[in-house]
Amino acid sequence: MWRPDRQSKQTLYEQIADHLEQRISYGEFPPGSLLPSERKLAEQFGVNRSTIIMAFGELRAMGIIESRSGSGTRVSRTKWGATPKHTPNWNRYVEGGSFLPNLPFMRKIREALNQQPSLIDFASGELSADLAPIEEITALMNGHQYTSYLGYDHPQGYVPLRQALVPYLSKYRSIETGESSILITSGSQQSLYLITQCLLSPGDAVAIEDPSYCYSLPMFQSAGLRLFRLPVDRCGVNPEEIRLLHKKHRIKMVFLNPNFQNPTGTVTSAERRKQLLDVASELGLPIVEDDPFSLTAYNGEAPLPLKAADVNGSVLHIGSFSKIAASGLRVGWMVAPHAIVERLADARQQMDFGLSVIPQQVAAQFLKSPQFEPHLNRLRMQLIFKRDLLIEALQKELGDLVLYTVPEGGLHLWCKLVPDVPEAKLLDEAIRNGVVFVPGSVYGSDAGYVRFTFARAKADEIRRGIAGFAKALRGLM
Amino acid sequence: MWRPDRQSKQTLYEQIADHLEQRISYGEFPPGSLLPSERKLAEQFGVNRSTIIMAFGELRAMGIIESRSGSGTRVSRTKWGATPKHTPNWNRYVEGGSFLPNLPFMRKIREALNQQPSLIDFASGELSADLAPIEEITALMNGHQYTSYLGYDHPQGYVPLRQALVPYLSKYRSIETGESSILITSGSQQSLYLITQCLLSPGDAVAIEDPSYCYSLPMFQSAGLRLFRLPVDRCGVNPEEIRLLHKKHRIKMVFLNPNFQNPTGTVTSAERRKQLLDVASELGLPIVEDDPFSLTAYNGEAPLPLKAADVNGSVLHIGSFSKIAASGLRVGWMVAPHAIVERLADARQQMDFGLSVIPQQVAAQFLKSPQFEPHLNRLRMQLIFKRDLLIEALQKELGDLVLYTVPEGGLHLWCKLVPDVPEAKLLDEAIRNGVVFVPGSVYGSDAGYVRFTFARAKADEIRRGIAGFAKALRGLM
Repeated sequence: MWRPDRQSKQTLYEQIADHLEQRISYGEFPPGSLLPSERKLAEQFGVNRSTIIMAFGELRAMGIIESRSGSGTRVSRTKWGATPKHTPNWNRYVEGGSFLPNLPFMRKIREALNQQPSLIDFASGELSADLAPIEEITALMNGHQYTSYLGYDHPQGYVPLRQALVPYLSKYRSIETGESSILITSGSQQSLYLITQCLLSPGDAVAIEDPSYCYSLPMFQSAGLRLFRLPVDRCGVNPEEIRLLHKKHRIKMVFLNPNFQNPTGTVTSAERRKQLLDVASELGLPIVEDDPFSLTAYNGEAPLPLKAADVNGSVLHIGSFSKIAASGLRVGWMVAPHAIVERLADARQQMDFGLSVIPQQVAAQFLKSPQFEPHLNRLRMQLIFKRDLLIEALQKELGDLVLYTVPEGGLHLWCKLVPDVPEAKLLDEAIRNGVVFVPGSVYGSDAGYVRFTFARAKADEIRRGIAGFAKALRGLM
Repeated sequence: MWRPDRQSKQTLYEQIADHLEQRISYGEFPPGSLLPSERKLAEQFGVNRSTIIMAFGELRAMGIIESRSGSGTRVSRTKWGATPKHTPNWNRYVEGGSFLPNLPFMRKIREALNQQPSLIDFASGELSADLAPIEEITALMNGHQYTSYLGYDHPQGYVPLRQALVPYLSKYRSIETGESSILITSGSQQSLYLITQCLLSPGDAVAIEDPSYCYSLPMFQSAGLRLFRLPVDRCGVNPEEIRLLHKKHRIKMVFLNPNFQNPTGTVTSAERRKQLLDVASELGLPIVEDDPFSLTAYNGEAPLPLKAADVNGSVLHIGSFSKIAASGLRVGWMVAPHAIVERLADARQQMDFGLSVIPQQVAAQFLKSPQFEPHLNRLRMQLIFKRDLLIEALQKELGDLVLYTVPEGGLHLWCKLVPDVPEAKLLDEAIRNGVVFVPGSVYGSDAGYVRFTFARAKADEIRRGIAGFAKALRGLM
């Protein structure tokens, strides 16, 4: 049930007038129909009757409603009964709909990057062009003959790619599975979207890490889920907290990013991993494990996923090429019980009829090619190089004004700012100084944090970018 | 509110026992909690009290609930208070979720095709391998250098593809637009999905053609929309019916497929087109125009889309390469007011983070290549050839037992069966005879119709396929 927003800058009566106008224009109250009484509406919206009287006054002035003493308030016939030619009120459609828009910070960042392509980008969580295997992919595409059928794909994804993922998962992630338990998705985002849409219902409670990438995704709210927080400490999340949340809120699923967590960079400790799996199987509770960063481990020893030790089948494992090859491929996967894979594949047919065969062919060839492993090694060396450039610049420009743990894998540095400055202003100032980052509150964290992605900027931009950021920060202190 | 299904083969009390067990295992009734009284549940589920008594007996026998005289029925502590190790009850998750599964007929057809790839396929609405421009695409890919960045794409889609679509839309569809009003999607399916998710809200009423492809899509029901029918006659839908539906149900959007309508093949007449636009602008009602088939027009004169004459901006126009090039490319588009394009692009970021750049590059190059027009000409000739093979076979095998209008474009023949046979049995028998088709009821039509797609089967299979179908039909007469 709609109620006016008391935090809004718009007055209560204006909000109510707009709301009623919308309901009238949508035909909920057709021309000539009687509106609910002032007293009833006041009750329904939780406001004083005088507020309704002011809203009615507004609508009367616009000719939308008519009041006659003794016969209540009616929708005007003259205004709405006439049928002037007009285009659909597209703004109403844009504001409607059950799917929520992106967070304002994320939209602001995207708009800034669109308008000023020269901005130094510490915000986009992806690899720069020189880190992606573009030459390798070009060579593979040039050498390939598309003799095969270019029709609708298998709902679970291109069979040769799933076949190539079976030995990949075994060798690199210690996950033993078969192609029928693999669903190809367009990346982790689609995997999460399918899970929230198809396996959970509005009102269901789920646990997510705090801070977490998941908080940046209105998809959880769009799906009507109730979110509960699992604080991330230096060893990951505390499994006992899951038990408490389950007892208190009957959470139905847990979303974790155990290796080089986004945004903190944390790796869940071996002890916690074991405990997590124990709690999950004790409670019969599924864990969704998002695992895009493990192969970036700078020491070359990728931490194992939860799925590798998941003897009770509690874990849905999500992987992707986006952070280890190229986000523009749009190829990811999920390892799950076959019943889950089938259900999600079926639903995905309804949403987009599956993925293009072409990038799946490219991905399958790349996985099997002798270039894959050298690419990973090169990627790791370059990520270390960029991370060190970033840290050097932060030390030089900001010294004691920033606190962070040096990440051992992944694309991000999670940084606490010592000075207390307003986030929105800091972002505006940074953009004015030629640089974008993601404010910490996007990840559901307290204000005062910043996520710097060091993989996306060019190496020679990093120092300049941090100098611009430092100028913005100092200007607000 | 859940109620037992009286059409189900499972008894009422078993359904109720299952339902309660599920709610208990989901934690809605925690261990030790009091269940509602037998009388209350009987009322709630619309059954006799004796049915509830039987369901309770079932749950008691399983140790899930306990009854004590005078203190009601409680969830057992011993059963649920204990914490045995177990895997998540994945089936419960599969059955949950707000997104509906595909229609049973569609799933049956897909399973049959997966299990017996040798089936002659009159069901999949797509082109056969020999009709797709596979050689052209291979040549384009082999000649291309991926010097560009392979990162996340622009939310509205790859800029050079949108730039290539502007002259394409002008030349082939008489639509004058700019790249900022174009959204690249993974095909018509994703365009429809984005519209139903983002521009409409649960409870909204919309009008769709009857019969229509839209009926085969549970996505409309998943979005909670109320569907109202617009009968398709030889000239398309009757615009006056839209006016009536708007008056009666305040429909918020109309979904049309005016050219070579799926499944009937109908082309909306020029007079009706004009009236449709008049009604839409009079009511301020948006029309979603799905236009995938126009360029298949067998006489080479593609009928114009509604959008070409849409001076009031009422039409969201949807196009795709799936039916004129290759469905495996997964490239489609929408032409819409910029505010709509931005809203849908923003939401799509949440769902899958956009499309792979690679097929978009291929599509852009193909559109601009000198091979595009010769491909279209070749496609038309081959579709005529296959349509004629199908009609010849139907005449020979079934003669007066089938009625149809010969289509002048598109991939399908919509066929009325004179004998009254049960659809499900006909499909089973046809599969046994080596052929699949789509039963008419999938499109929301009365039973007794069949959609034959003649574009997907190989030319030398068509006669054999229809012979198999005829055998199945005659066997049931």
